[in-house]
Amino acid sequence: MRIVVDAMGSDNHPAPDVAGAVEAAREFGDEIILVGDQKLLEAELAKHNLTNARVTIKHASQAVTMEDKPRDVVRGKPDSSMHVGMNLVKEGAAEAFVTAGNTGGALAIAMLGTLRRLPSIKRPALGILFPTPGHPLLIDNGANTDCDPENLLQFAQMGSIYVSRMNGIQQPRIALISNGEEDGKGNALIQATIPLLRESGLNYIGNIEPKEFLQGHADVGVTDGFVGNVLMKTVEATAKMLMEALRTELKAGVLSSLGGLLARPAFRRVGKILNPDEIGGAPLLGVKGVVIVAHGRSNAYAMKQAIGQARRIVEAKVLDALAEL
Amino acid sequence: MRIVVDAMGSDNHPAPDVAGAVEAAREFGDEIILVGDQKLLEAELAKHNLTNARVTIKHASQAVTMEDKPRDVVRGKPDSSMHVGMNLVKEGAAEAFVTAGNTGGALAIAMLGTLRRLPSIKRPALGILFPTPGHPLLIDNGANTDCDPENLLQFAQMGSIYVSRMNGIQQPRIALISNGEEDGKGNALIQATIPLLRESGLNYIGNIEPKEFLQGHADVGVTDGFVGNVLMKTVEATAKMLMEALRTELKAGVLSSLGGLLARPAFRRVGKILNPDEIGGAPLLGVKGVVIVAHGRSNAYAMKQAIGQARRIVEAKVLDALAEL
Repeated sequence: MRIVVDAMGSDNHPAPDVAGAVEAAREFGDEIILVGDQKLLEAELAKHNLTNARVTIKHASQAVTMEDKPRDVVRGKPDSSMHVGMNLVKEGAAEAFVTAGNTGGALAIAMLGTLRRLPSIKRPALGILFPTPGHPLLIDNGANTDCDPENLLQFAQMGSIYVSRMNGIQQPRIALISNGEEDGKGNALIQATIPLLRESGLNYIGNIEPKEFLQGHADVGVTDGFVGNVLMKTVEATAKMLMEALRTELKAGVLSSLGGLLARPAFRRVGKILNPDEIGGAPLLGVKGVVIVAHGRSNAYAMKQAIGQARRIVEAKVLDALAEL
Repeated sequence: MRIVVDAMGSDNHPAPDVAGAVEAAREFGDEIILVGDQKLLEAELAKHNLTNARVTIKHASQAVTMEDKPRDVVRGKPDSSMHVGMNLVKEGAAEAFVTAGNTGGALAIAMLGTLRRLPSIKRPALGILFPTPGHPLLIDNGANTDCDPENLLQFAQMGSIYVSRMNGIQQPRIALISNGEEDGKGNALIQATIPLLRESGLNYIGNIEPKEFLQGHADVGVTDGFVGNVLMKTVEATAKMLMEALRTELKAGVLSSLGGLLARPAFRRVGKILNPDEIGGAPLLGVKGVVIVAHGRSNAYAMKQAIGQARRIVEAKVLDALAEL
């Protein structure tokens, strides 16, 4: 399998992007094509032992920065590493594309500049597997801030296919993320989406609150990209605040310092529960190619996980199933 | 001061409601009027020492349950403890009303059955002070699932007054809760609200993400009630999940058990950071009376805190300032 990795993407590029690619090439045996500035990447690759790691470089003269506006990059940076990388997938020279760069830029280039939408999908969406029990999928996670009921129905359909193929679940449980479980709860969008899901043939189990979603009561939580993004960022922010407060408090006294030391393995295990690095990245579902958008602050391990996720999506033929919608 | 407490409200009523009322009467010196079933409350009150605690009972023959639909209770339960209690405030027989009962029911009875809206306020809203650093106010927290830009502007105005009067902040920093800080981020509602806030004369500082809100970068986070409710519930759910995971992991080994024991005071302090009991309840801003809605699972301490919050709202003359909007 050939997987393209945007080496100009992450906040600390190209080091984590390249290191993760090399590790992935060795561990999975795939060919990894790094896209970005040739000289920069040659210098970075020289730091690595490439025994048993097939890693090549494809030059791109431009890079999308985190500050770039999505609308400016599609035509404004036509030789960006994102354009070049996604075009490799489009031309069949590779099977998947992974980037830790500007999410909005990646979506715009995928949808408008290179791969384009699957014909039946009105709005591609970002799915993200939560690192909580059961690994539920949240879709949309930020690609579409304003949605109509038909969009949410398609998110549910795409999410169901993704979870079914990736996790081997026959009839994934689909739920709408809402402010209450009763049918009467929710905003106008939720209310208008409920009948569509009821008639969809999907395994729609109703509305769930954030607590039930995090506990894995559904396999797919469906929401518009604004709410989904706020939800995901709230989970991250709360976990970070709590873990930092714990670290501070544990240092505040001799006994608690000792306690913290003894309990360190326990803390590590808890930290993993909500660590997005374990999951990798968010697949952009609904475009004509496998695209994974990883977190901007991905380290080498997170990049490797994102590449591993991309190859599983290819192996599971998720794209073929989505194209049949 | 006379404060009415719905004794039929909390999940475990009337025990925590009555116990909190007695504690508040003693600590604050106010007269507390318990509303609910006379016989039940007499029996419950008999369990308490009422020395230096002025607590009286006002009979109400009905009670709103957590299962009742808001639209059914306004006319369907006209002698509910919520109706009777809020009418005492309306008639000037008391200065504030506190309930830990059905939130939707309380809002409906306040807006449609008893106190009614302030003339200039289109949509009353629930504000909630987050128990995180700086105690930022989130408004709306669930009263209005679908909002227009004018609603959000009024939430900002009410929130600014509330925080200014309650926390003594001269020009509270107002921010819109969004999926990104840049002006271009946000959904259509956010985009349409930005110009209104810019021209409002409020100290509008822009859009903030959940992380910055939780860290207290703004004094007031403005959002529609759907997103606000999802955000609050996500914070609660994440904190609960992490603390429970920590408890489980700490029990998993001898060393970590010992560590957990030594570090217990540190854990307690961290637990308080996100403990809603510390705050009390959510004021319903925009109706003609002081109304606090506390959490259904409030214990006596949380009830006492909610009553203390109600009396501070009365003392700070928040209602007079809101009426001038």
